[in-house]
Amino acid sequence: MQLDKATPEKLRQWEQSLASEYAGLASQSLSLDLTRGKPCAEQVALSAALDGILAGDYTTATGVDTRNYGGIDGIAEMKQLAAGILQVEAGEVLVGGNSSLSLMFQTVLHAYLFGFDGPDSAWSRQGQAKFLCPVPGYDRHFSICQQLGIEMLTVPMNADGPDMDRVEEMIKADAAIKGIWCVPKYSNPSGAVYSDRVVERIAALGPTAGAGFRVFWDNAYAVHDLGPEPAQLAAIMDCCRRLGTEDSVIQFASTSKITFAGAGVAFMAASAANLASFKRALGVATIGPDKVNQLRHARLLPSMPALREHMKKHAQIIKPRFDCVLEHLQAAFGNCDLGRWESPAGGYFISFYTRPGLAAEVVRLAAEAGVKLTPAGATFPYGKDPQDSNIRIAPTVPSVAELEQAMKVLIICVKLASVRQKLVTGKAF
Amino acid sequence: MQLDKATPEKLRQWEQSLASEYAGLASQSLSLDLTRGKPCAEQVALSAALDGILAGDYTTATGVDTRNYGGIDGIAEMKQLAAGILQVEAGEVLVGGNSSLSLMFQTVLHAYLFGFDGPDSAWSRQGQAKFLCPVPGYDRHFSICQQLGIEMLTVPMNADGPDMDRVEEMIKADAAIKGIWCVPKYSNPSGAVYSDRVVERIAALGPTAGAGFRVFWDNAYAVHDLGPEPAQLAAIMDCCRRLGTEDSVIQFASTSKITFAGAGVAFMAASAANLASFKRALGVATIGPDKVNQLRHARLLPSMPALREHMKKHAQIIKPRFDCVLEHLQAAFGNCDLGRWESPAGGYFISFYTRPGLAAEVVRLAAEAGVKLTPAGATFPYGKDPQDSNIRIAPTVPSVAELEQAMKVLIICVKLASVRQKLVTGKAF
Repeated sequence: MQLDKATPEKLRQWEQSLASEYAGLASQSLSLDLTRGKPCAEQVALSAALDGILAGDYTTATGVDTRNYGGIDGIAEMKQLAAGILQVEAGEVLVGGNSSLSLMFQTVLHAYLFGFDGPDSAWSRQGQAKFLCPVPGYDRHFSICQQLGIEMLTVPMNADGPDMDRVEEMIKADAAIKGIWCVPKYSNPSGAVYSDRVVERIAALGPTAGAGFRVFWDNAYAVHDLGPEPAQLAAIMDCCRRLGTEDSVIQFASTSKITFAGAGVAFMAASAANLASFKRALGVATIGPDKVNQLRHARLLPSMPALREHMKKHAQIIKPRFDCVLEHLQAAFGNCDLGRWESPAGGYFISFYTRPGLAAEVVRLAAEAGVKLTPAGATFPYGKDPQDSNIRIAPTVPSVAELEQAMKVLIICVKLASVRQKLVTGKAF
Repeated sequence: MQLDKATPEKLRQWEQSLASEYAGLASQSLSLDLTRGKPCAEQVALSAALDGILAGDYTTATGVDTRNYGGIDGIAEMKQLAAGILQVEAGEVLVGGNSSLSLMFQTVLHAYLFGFDGPDSAWSRQGQAKFLCPVPGYDRHFSICQQLGIEMLTVPMNADGPDMDRVEEMIKADAAIKGIWCVPKYSNPSGAVYSDRVVERIAALGPTAGAGFRVFWDNAYAVHDLGPEPAQLAAIMDCCRRLGTEDSVIQFASTSKITFAGAGVAFMAASAANLASFKRALGVATIGPDKVNQLRHARLLPSMPALREHMKKHAQIIKPRFDCVLEHLQAAFGNCDLGRWESPAGGYFISFYTRPGLAAEVVRLAAEAGVKLTPAGATFPYGKDPQDSNIRIAPTVPSVAELEQAMKVLIICVKLASVRQKLVTGKAF
């Protein structure tokens, strides 16, 4: 379907036949959901052994009774596993509760309200704070900024990470930029993996930025590979050590998409100075994390090889789902310019781009035909995609059969919206 | 030992013999700890069945798979149990993670930074916020205020709750007072239970206070009775309903001292308006609580009668410890004025008062003899007891045999410090 070469008559024919096809699908009362970046039932079942795995032994290797109070930064076993995932030393890890988003919120709050280097270093005392947000990105990162009144500035995401020329230029030009959000491996939603050179340049940002600048490194998909040959992400803390910038990067991850999405274990890694400062504030806000659940996780996943074996089972479950979506997209749009997309090697999303100005209309059409898509714009700060083009597809929850149906609907909606737009604008004909 | 009737010679004799007794105890290399308000190993073992209790069934009665994302306010079963504990409707409950302190911090933060009724209602936009703190009280409540720069004003605790004449007077006189901390049953550390009249008067405070005022009702020991006839606390939400002040009270509790201190379930209760506002902010800071652990708790404690049976087992373990401390105090100070104390019917502490000016010295002497006591002043805002008199004794962790030793040391320290003070000041002789 080459819209820009079609006659108006041809476009009208297409519109009629697509509208009729759409009406047929819409009449089927479908109820499909491609919005949720969460594991499916088979995936959480992979960790069903967690409850009961302690077999009455609640004590860590170092003799801590996990049932009682104590230990603001988690148990040694879980620090070890977290260190393996984040490629840091165990001493650089703090293990928290069930939510890495909580750790991120608390860390940004700490920098904003209390200051990593004492009250005077709090961003809130230094005028309007700003963040760099590579786009498209993760809506919940943006919500944290919005909640705290931090202004968000966008930078484009490339296939190898954020546009670093632009990032460096902006940071040098504006000392009010206090942070940048990064999902460095299988980025949400594009699936991009930051190249070694980009990781190195991000590790070098600190000294060129305003006081209190921090990189928020959300390595949510660190071990979430779809294929047998995982993408390799450079260890940013190693880069920082070479550059002497350890204080400028704070890393996060969790087992939410390794074990239980609602009941996993979240953790962070940072320099000794950052950890000490954060722990002082954290100690006001909680007595400590759930160490029992940490111990369960350490028993289920006692080593990185065990973790990698576990992740292969996830890939076996979800790779066919990704393949289904990608095959449909290729078949429909491989030879035309109605859509483009990324083929991620891991993570939880497929990022699809309509022609500019059509994402909201496609989402609306799909919803009316019973297929729920993430709201257009959700992957941009303030919910506004300036191109109105990006749609985040989350393929893990529906079955392959459901995805087949949902993709048929999505593809018809993209075609229909594109033809109608072309009919109205008539451009380039 | 009647200090005020003793001759200087008699005082010197006492000092010599007490100093010698103290030296003897100090030479025993004791290592005892009366500081920790936490359950002992036998207590947490009462809930050892928690891990594994799900027997592979992770689904709630309403069909929610607790292993996955979703549900910012917890599962229905746990709301029901929480409602029983806090004497509210299940719809007024939000169930969180493992820490009620976290819920309190987040709630105070919400009121301070974001505002329960929109940004303009945030305390931080209304000048210097202040809190009323009944003293002695809970140090971690005070830490939250201190962290946020909220000024703390003290009011005396009586046997039936805070001095309400003083509370009402202060609140009417100063619209900057935005909150009051309350531990209404077996108050930390005095063990006082608020009378029905005090509860009623607290429920009536809202309309007389400045905008945004909230009562922070930390019912930490709601079901933590030592004897067979529990103290009855009036249901404050019922009072609020009669008075139309539902929005002015926010309640908190947890199972930290019911099941596992580090891995229990925390919850709060509030009006529909307060809950809705808080949930919007909470949804930025987390995806949701650990529902799996909530389900474990609901299975272990499926009803209030089951919970009460469970709490009787706690009482069996810790009542002998409380009795030991109280018997020692009675034997040593029952017939003199060297110390006074409260005999709580529940909770986790015994509050002991030295003669004014001696608490820090007693804590120091005890520490040098190997008995760790909570730092003097810890039960007051900013760590400063103006009388230097209150010492919080936490008897649950040590064994009765250890308590016997620790109390001997404590009593000698109190006597020695008192005699030395009398020798120096010579007052009233």
